Amino acid sequence: MAHTFNVDTQAPQQSIDITEKVVAAVAESGVDDGFCHVMVLHSTASIIINETADPNIGRDVIDALGRAVPTRSDWLHDRIDDNAHSHIKAAILGPSEMIAIDQGALVLGKWQEIMLIEFDGPRERQVSVRFLSS
Amino acid sequence: MAHTFNVDTQAPQQSIDITEKVVAAVAESGVDDGFCHVMVLHSTASIIINETADPNIGRDVIDALGRAVPTRSDWLHDRIDDNAHSHIKAAILGPSEMIAIDQGALVLGKWQEIMLIEFDGPRERQVSVRFLSS
Amino acid sequence: MAHTFNVDTQAPQQSIDITEKVVAAVAESGVDDGFCHVMVLHSTASIIINETADPNIGRDVIDALGRAVPTRSDWLHDRIDDNAHSHIKAAILGPSEMIAIDQGALVLGKWQEIMLIEFDGPRERQVSVRFLSS
Repeated sequence: MAHTFNVDTQAPQQSIDITEKVVAAVAESGVDDGFCHVMVLHSTASIIINETADPNIGRDVIDALGRAVPTRSDWLHDRIDDNAHSHIKAAILGPSEMIAIDQGALVLGKWQEIMLIEFDGPRERQVSVRFLSS
Repeated sequence: MAHTFNVDTQAPQQSIDITEKVVAAVAESGVDDGFCHVMVLHSTASIIINETADPNIGRDVIDALGRAVPTRSDWLHDRIDDNAHSHIKAAILGPSEMIAIDQGALVLGKWQEIMLIEFDGPRERQVSVRFLSS
Repeated sequence: MAHTFNVDTQAPQQSIDITEKVVAAVAESGVDDGFCHVMVLHSTASIIINETADPNIGRDVIDALGRAVPTRSDWLHDRIDDNAHSHIKAAILGPSEMIAIDQGALVLGKWQEIMLIEFDGPRERQVSVRFLSS
């Protein structure tokens, strides 16, 4: 019941809808009722749930975090690496989401999709999907 | 073991203590030991855990997010809708919380309650409560 | 399968790597495959997952939140207590993280550790670790 997939990001900061990949993992798991845990195994990227019908929402989220957390701003971590802002943003949004499964389907609202948010790309990101059957 | 309740919000932005509704759902579920997953099924509202003994804390959270994420600020999503700021704030706080259940009671600290945060009201919001028995 | 440990923080705001304590709790639980839920039982501290190889990342996260949420800023909660900023930051980062367990080991990326973030210290903080076996 463990599933992992990779996402190749193409830009320094980017939002990517991964709902279909998670839905495929749920189908493969055979879990009818329970939970699905989606976690990116990196500290400069995040998993969030929000609307992707307008892909600009992901861009607005990245833009807003960029205004609150400037890329260059005397961050201490920038003394040894140049991606402190990526770590800070990833900590704020968090690495994972938990989603219920009901009769084999993810329990999401009409305007809720699952997104990977890249803050230090382009990179290959590993996403772990794990299940609990109830 | 699936439970859903609605919350009617009364203002554009508002925090509402939903702890009693979740406690009632736990009692109804009959789960003695396990977990409770509380998720709002919308992309412009959030579930958080914090103190409600002073209801102003929820207002301060909304105020702080309003300063960091201005309501009007050339967000891309505002070209097709006027609630980009609501989506951004909901993404930051997240749609769900997981809470342990011990002998039928939620495992919360003395000053922890469960709140729904409305960022695009007033609306009827649907909250899903799901359980895992351990 | 319930485990609690305390963390004594030494400063008003501080990040502390608690990964080893969680790993010890997992070992004690005997859970081979499942999930581990780590939650701080307070409303002015948070649990996050990020890199601690450079301990300055935790300091940068605290610094960034301090810029976005000023310590003194006419917060309503400050009328009855002086820690509104601590509550706001704790709400943004959240009180808990869920981590999968595979063959007795936490499923974390190479640069992911578990941190307690103190926003209103120094204090003794209680951390609850609960398990689900799959």
